[in-house]
Amino acid sequence: MFSYDWTVQYYETDQMAIVHHSNYIRWFESARTAYLSEMGIPYDKMEAAGIISPVLTVNCQYRQMTRYGETVTITPVLSSYNGVKYVVTYEIRNKETGVLNATGETSHCFLSKDGKIVSLKKALPETHAVLQGLVKKEE
Amino acid sequence: MFSYDWTVQYYETDQMAIVHHSNYIRWFESARTAYLSEMGIPYDKMEAAGIISPVLTVNCQYRQMTRYGETVTITPVLSSYNGVKYVVTYEIRNKETGVLNATGETSHCFLSKDGKIVSLKKALPETHAVLQGLVKKEE
Amino acid sequence: MFSYDWTVQYYETDQMAIVHHSNYIRWFESARTAYLSEMGIPYDKMEAAGIISPVLTVNCQYRQMTRYGETVTITPVLSSYNGVKYVVTYEIRNKETGVLNATGETSHCFLSKDGKIVSLKKALPETHAVLQGLVKKEE
Amino acid sequence: MFSYDWTVQYYETDQMAIVHHSNYIRWFESARTAYLSEMGIPYDKMEAAGIISPVLTVNCQYRQMTRYGETVTITPVLSSYNGVKYVVTYEIRNKETGVLNATGETSHCFLSKDGKIVSLKKALPETHAVLQGLVKKEE
Repeated sequence: MFSYDWTVQYYETDQMAIVHHSNYIRWFESARTAYLSEMGIPYDKMEAAGIISPVLTVNCQYRQMTRYGETVTITPVLSSYNGVKYVVTYEIRNKETGVLNATGETSHCFLSKDGKIVSLKKALPETHAVLQGLVKKEE
Repeated sequence: MFSYDWTVQYYETDQMAIVHHSNYIRWFESARTAYLSEMGIPYDKMEAAGIISPVLTVNCQYRQMTRYGETVTITPVLSSYNGVKYVVTYEIRNKETGVLNATGETSHCFLSKDGKIVSLKKALPETHAVLQGLVKKEE
Repeated sequence: MFSYDWTVQYYETDQMAIVHHSNYIRWFESARTAYLSEMGIPYDKMEAAGIISPVLTVNCQYRQMTRYGETVTITPVLSSYNGVKYVVTYEIRNKETGVLNATGETSHCFLSKDGKIVSLKKALPETHAVLQGLVKKEE
Repeated sequence: MFSYDWTVQYYETDQMAIVHHSNYIRWFESARTAYLSEMGIPYDKMEAAGIISPVLTVNCQYRQMTRYGETVTITPVLSSYNGVKYVVTYEIRNKETGVLNATGETSHCFLSKDGKIVSLKKALPETHAVLQGLVKKEE
């Protein structure tokens, strides 16, 4: 299973002396783009092909505060894909102890640069096939 | 009804030429803290009293991309409060056109600085009364 | 003289309980773009005309820590402009007390979207005239 | 020589389709704290001992735009240390091509948590010795 390690940066902390909650949303993105890139779908190549993949929804459940000095492991899983939309779920755990710091989910569609919804099956059939394969693997 | 205006900053954009989705989570915080401060609950005073109010959950639904040059109006509403936890919902709209850019929700508890759950009714009875009043007003 | 007010946001603090130093660089940008826009040079219009204005150098001297709860006033001044490059200097002061929190300077050029240096006098003569006028005023 | 690799994150880009310039200042910090930690001066331990090390000045010269998809190598060098203040210089290069993207410098002092200047020689003699050794090595 793909996972993505992240060392907490000082600038990610706030004056509660914990990682500011908005950064978990950024970590989801870092893990998701690294995962898709690893699976053969680099986001910069997709954009170069004229397709963007904006975020439709995001949610995050904060279980345990993350602090400076920690390294976390983010595990993204492609939980659904139907040709026009995909959903990724995430777990964020302390790399050393395995303690669960947060869970979350993001959903995404594909748009052409002029903002129209794109069916990936037609526009990028190879990428479509990769995503279908990834979802099957998770079932 | 309280609302909070925000002018999109250049550094909030990403290479899709839209505001990066993580910034909406930050706007929720800006609107929430301004709202609570306006209602007599300034966050810096609460922290000075030894109480922090971390985020338990966050969700956001992105409806319309927000772009550089826009000003948005964020409307936070205290939708529930039970003495140990409160929930705030948000609408983000283009200030000029009123178009809905996003909706969302955050939930929060109160902790002492050593991480124990605080009952606000005992710890800060005045703040407790303000929050109760705000929830009633919304019902 | 143009000045730009900014209320410190919670997410701008770090675990030293002060504003993280990287945010001052962002405040310079906010003040600079608001200033130029006020003077008739909105950055989004310039980009729409195919010209970007990247940062060449930045420096900042931190005099006094800025904390959550403060509002600062940023004063940008166009200190030089020669047709292909301009320099802006900044003062950041506590709005209430006038205490100097930081000073700094940024320099910028103009580029076409394919990365070539643009002489503003030819490309955008009206913007060129505005910048010349602003520099004169400061002398 | 110590160096620190960083993969550009999507959220670090802006609508010029380059890394926003404020992020280089954050990369300096990431490289500096990793470097000092590697040399036996972990920043979290120093803070736990009641000493903070705020930034006094920062400057950065942007030579080449950095884009999404790039990995950069940041090389921090402790260029001076006199017991109460230290200076670090940086080079940021494309990891693959070696092209120089930026150079910069930050300076720092040591403060107790109540804001008084700390002489590291007295307060943390071992850390003082490490810093002296590092500067000698660079001469």
